[in-house]
Amino acid sequence: MRDDDWPALWPLLRDTVAAGETYAFPADLDADTGRPWWTGEHVVVAVEGDVLLGSAKAGPNRPGRGAHVATASFVVAPAARGRGVGRVLGEHVIAWARENSYRAVQFNAVVETNTVAVRLWESLGFQVVGTVPEAFDSRAHGLVGLHVMHLAL
Amino acid sequence: MRDDDWPALWPLLRDTVAAGETYAFPADLDADTGRPWWTGEHVVVAVEGDVLLGSAKAGPNRPGRGAHVATASFVVAPAARGRGVGRVLGEHVIAWARENSYRAVQFNAVVETNTVAVRLWESLGFQVVGTVPEAFDSRAHGLVGLHVMHLAL
Repeated sequence: MRDDDWPALWPLLRDTVAAGETYAFPADLDADTGRPWWTGEHVVVAVEGDVLLGSAKAGPNRPGRGAHVATASFVVAPAARGRGVGRVLGEHVIAWARENSYRAVQFNAVVETNTVAVRLWESLGFQVVGTVPEAFDSRAHGLVGLHVMHLAL
Repeated sequence: MRDDDWPALWPLLRDTVAAGETYAFPADLDADTGRPWWTGEHVVVAVEGDVLLGSAKAGPNRPGRGAHVATASFVVAPAARGRGVGRVLGEHVIAWARENSYRAVQFNAVVETNTVAVRLWESLGFQVVGTVPEAFDSRAHGLVGLHVMHLAL
């Protein structure tokens, strides 16, 4: 990702958060205050020509004695869904984590009703380590669980 | 906690992180750079006269659609261990979360070999939702699991 990708990425991220089904980000972000929420050791975009299809950010899940485990976040443009963009981004992040000697990839908060994401991560080898009950306030479903998902590398 | 509690709290926190058994905080913090790691919506100290016995910090575990779940961190001075300081701090945080209409308290990373803490939280009603394998690099034990622990309010 380059700085000049942000103007296209921000509306996608904003609308994804506003949809209320996947991300527990602050509700009042704008393009400037939202920028720090999509940074990390490794941030990439998926593009087709000049069109942004999605993005992923990855880095250590914790500092210090937890820094050997990576985490990541993903967003895919609605118009690009069902085309395997999330899978490509997920495979990329797993390969990046492996190349950078991480021991595992951990997702801290996968909304259990986001079944497309849950199934995708499971198909890439992730397992649900546990589900925190009622930890996410889904716009459509009310209080639903957040999966902690894990892939050993 | 008041600002003038920090000079007594910082060495306790620094030594706790350096011991390498409980916290995945950065290893290179000093009194200034460590300060932001012990802030939150609610930060308290346990004292006996002028002596600091421990501290707790608490606040929302996530922003936005996850802000109805609280989280907290605790530290107890080695000289004060076994006297119920952690229990008093834990009970205080649970009461604070309940009074502030949180729906639950979640601990994201309780080191599984920190059995004193695990037993204490279980005795206060917390349950292990899941354990992320080998997610903490314990100085004494090597790679050990991190429990996600949860108490519904």
